[in-house]
Amino acid sequence: MFVCARRASAASLRRAHLSTTTHLTPVAEHDIAHFSEFLSPSSIISSLSPRSSPAQELEPFNNDWMGRFHGRSTTVLKPKTTRQVSQILKWCNERRIGVVPQGGNTGLVGGSVPVNDEVILSLSSLNKVRSFDPVSGILVADAGCILQSLTDYVAPHNHIMPIDLGAKGSCQIGGNVATNAGGLRLLRYGSLHGTVLGLEVVLPDGTILDQLTTLRKDNTGYDLKQLFIGAEGTLGVITGVSILTPPAPQASNNVILALPSFDNVLPLYQTVKRQLSEILSAFEFIDRTAYDLAVKHGQGRALSDEDVAGAECFVLVETSGGRREHDEEKLNDLLELLLTADKPLINTGVLSQSPAQFSSIWALREGVTEAVSKEGKAYKYDISVPLSSFKRVVDDTREHLRSKGLLHDRAVKYVIGYGHVGDGNLHLNIVADAYLPEIEDALEPYIYEVVASFRGSISAEHGIGAMKTHALPYSKSAVSIDLMKKIKHVFDPRGIMNPGKVLE
Amino acid sequence: MFVCARRASAASLRRAHLSTTTHLTPVAEHDIAHFSEFLSPSSIISSLSPRSSPAQELEPFNNDWMGRFHGRSTTVLKPKTTRQVSQILKWCNERRIGVVPQGGNTGLVGGSVPVNDEVILSLSSLNKVRSFDPVSGILVADAGCILQSLTDYVAPHNHIMPIDLGAKGSCQIGGNVATNAGGLRLLRYGSLHGTVLGLEVVLPDGTILDQLTTLRKDNTGYDLKQLFIGAEGTLGVITGVSILTPPAPQASNNVILALPSFDNVLPLYQTVKRQLSEILSAFEFIDRTAYDLAVKHGQGRALSDEDVAGAECFVLVETSGGRREHDEEKLNDLLELLLTADKPLINTGVLSQSPAQFSSIWALREGVTEAVSKEGKAYKYDISVPLSSFKRVVDDTREHLRSKGLLHDRAVKYVIGYGHVGDGNLHLNIVADAYLPEIEDALEPYIYEVVASFRGSISAEHGIGAMKTHALPYSKSAVSIDLMKKIKHVFDPRGIMNPGKVLE
Repeated sequence: MFVCARRASAASLRRAHLSTTTHLTPVAEHDIAHFSEFLSPSSIISSLSPRSSPAQELEPFNNDWMGRFHGRSTTVLKPKTTRQVSQILKWCNERRIGVVPQGGNTGLVGGSVPVNDEVILSLSSLNKVRSFDPVSGILVADAGCILQSLTDYVAPHNHIMPIDLGAKGSCQIGGNVATNAGGLRLLRYGSLHGTVLGLEVVLPDGTILDQLTTLRKDNTGYDLKQLFIGAEGTLGVITGVSILTPPAPQASNNVILALPSFDNVLPLYQTVKRQLSEILSAFEFIDRTAYDLAVKHGQGRALSDEDVAGAECFVLVETSGGRREHDEEKLNDLLELLLTADKPLINTGVLSQSPAQFSSIWALREGVTEAVSKEGKAYKYDISVPLSSFKRVVDDTREHLRSKGLLHDRAVKYVIGYGHVGDGNLHLNIVADAYLPEIEDALEPYIYEVVASFRGSISAEHGIGAMKTHALPYSKSAVSIDLMKKIKHVFDPRGIMNPGKVLE
Repeated sequence: MFVCARRASAASLRRAHLSTTTHLTPVAEHDIAHFSEFLSPSSIISSLSPRSSPAQELEPFNNDWMGRFHGRSTTVLKPKTTRQVSQILKWCNERRIGVVPQGGNTGLVGGSVPVNDEVILSLSSLNKVRSFDPVSGILVADAGCILQSLTDYVAPHNHIMPIDLGAKGSCQIGGNVATNAGGLRLLRYGSLHGTVLGLEVVLPDGTILDQLTTLRKDNTGYDLKQLFIGAEGTLGVITGVSILTPPAPQASNNVILALPSFDNVLPLYQTVKRQLSEILSAFEFIDRTAYDLAVKHGQGRALSDEDVAGAECFVLVETSGGRREHDEEKLNDLLELLLTADKPLINTGVLSQSPAQFSSIWALREGVTEAVSKEGKAYKYDISVPLSSFKRVVDDTREHLRSKGLLHDRAVKYVIGYGHVGDGNLHLNIVADAYLPEIEDALEPYIYEVVASFRGSISAEHGIGAMKTHALPYSKSAVSIDLMKKIKHVFDPRGIMNPGKVLE
């Protein structure tokens, strides 16, 4: 498949963003007066009169946490009920005021801050658990509930949330659903397209679409809720979520394996899946460069120098199951099988023997991100490509940069790969001395073209947001994008919802 | 929620079906001539000249397997490639000829036969496996592949299909996806909305929508494929499916439990989930009447008369796991826990000790259907309601029939309930001496109203088809139905795709 897409410079992106909102009206003072009729004063932050809130109150809403995307909104609304959300949208739709729904604002692609001066609709005050059924494990919650709070809420009932992310302390369930968040539990519990049972959504004209069922099975017509999962707030505002929470595992364990060659990763994955079957909960890949960086930046080594010698890459395997002794027996048998094979797939493996060692092994994997940020400036790509091509994508990118004369101490220092083998999700990081235009030019559209050549995804879990709208054609055909635009028009004919996101 | 829906008589349904297709053109001889330009003679069955196929060749395509729904199509086309499907649809769209996609024709709601004289597009010749990756378990297959063939195809790789149905020997994967089939493995592997990774769909105008990715994660815009899952062929024709197949479990086991009271089912379900955790693969409920009927009609009893005395209902628990001895230990411990409790939730339980006993326990559950058909004429409702209301729905229906004077030997003989507790899916069967209009009038809309009062689903897994279009408002709001119609219009503005199905 050959894909041709226009690549936008920063300047043209800025122009595009301005033109994205020219059909929209800025918020005016009389709009604030209208909102004040049904919102309490604490639910309105606005630099406009009569609120005249100080600029710093708006700042955290106008900027993303990476400091990369910046909006110029004058007004943040924090409704407390679905009805208030409906009243806000009805008014904004009539007045053609752009609306940006904002959850925890923890996204990585600028999806939750305005591209211009749209109203920010913060869901943070819509944060009650509506119901939890400990028998079925079905939780119904307001969209603004923080993921960690929900995890804490179901824990006493021996349930867990089906998703887990680094941002769990800030991100909200509505935002998780709107961005189809992936995270660490996808291998085991599947995507939100399977675990979300129902949604309550306010459509751009204020209509409330109530599909907040608690049914596991419902074959009555088109499954509309699926459209909102991953739409990044461009079709409506998710106000309530019904989600299936799995029973908490009673025991977790992990092991780190050193492999002589990347070629062994795939047969290893097959063996591990067969041996561990239903208790396998993570299978994470770290290449040698990434491993060395993590160790260099202070991660306690689970493996000795001798263990590591001759290893081309590493794999972290986690199990979660209903009984510790059974899981340990399965893991021990797996290790024995691997180490006593005629042609061993691994050089060595270390099984955690304590909660501290368990954490230490995870810290090695999770420490790669921190090591990268300490080492320099990183270009991060979150892509889906076939498992078998992980190493090739990393190696080819490195060679490509070398051929451009960019692989040296004052340009690109490292090209590393790590990620979720089980999900086909590779984190490709290019660690540079500084952000340089020539590096960016060498990387894009090069990497998007590589991804397209594998029929991969340019965004496995981070989404499109404002950052990748121009790159969407690398992963989606013109037919798909045309249908997306038609669906956008059905739900949001005036284009007020999160303008400039997902679709150009 | 109060839902008001019009109930249609058989006569008005017939009229509705005829008016459903008045905007469409019947197939004519020159259409057959056109199809002959790109289809081989064996791919065209038509009573029209020059094919002049005998009527009996068309019969199996025009009638559903229950003999309940009857079409009057003159022409069946059996394309062998996606391109041929595209050519057919392009022509039919231009000529406004209605098209009914047909897989194994095993549905229960008349979704796969014409309501009038539409063309039948049989997918049965589009039946090749395109690829299977034994590492990821991702299978890509033509839509016409029979479910059992795919099960056989992945078996040597130690994988299973994530769905399993009674109709697996005839039903096709494309039909499974189009109807969002549930079946016996949903509790364990989730719905097709989670396991289907990609689809190839031919849109009504002949455009091929290629979203046949093999990615587990892809967050690039709206997840369009989800709309086709469960759309019952009303938005386009599914021609290819990419699906995630799980590793085959190494061991399966089951146990039948006798409960003194229905009230114990829910606490039992909680205990079983906690104890068996990830190896639980089925939790099926059978009420006493259903159990007695199965035994009366020849099911070998796993339980003795003494065991059964005082039991109000029964539960079948199945485990599937990676190691037999671990699973057996967990099951044995569960039984001991249940039997030695201060206030036991069960009277007794019998664990299968051999493959023959394993099958015999399942036969008891599956034998309910056969027993019902031997006992009389059955009105079958496939509904989703909260687990806690299963018994109440059955009891209330029985009382309702009694209050109408219809509960006696020459009218309704039994009202029974059984089904998938884990999925919230109740099969409510009313067994009568004969089909009588007064029974039907007593049952509908009564049962749909009961379901609506619980915010349940009038069709948990069977779909809407031609049979339940009039009842859709009991499960979906006017806002939802209006959006469905708009989406239908986006994909199929001329209304050629499976007319009269899903939406009135």
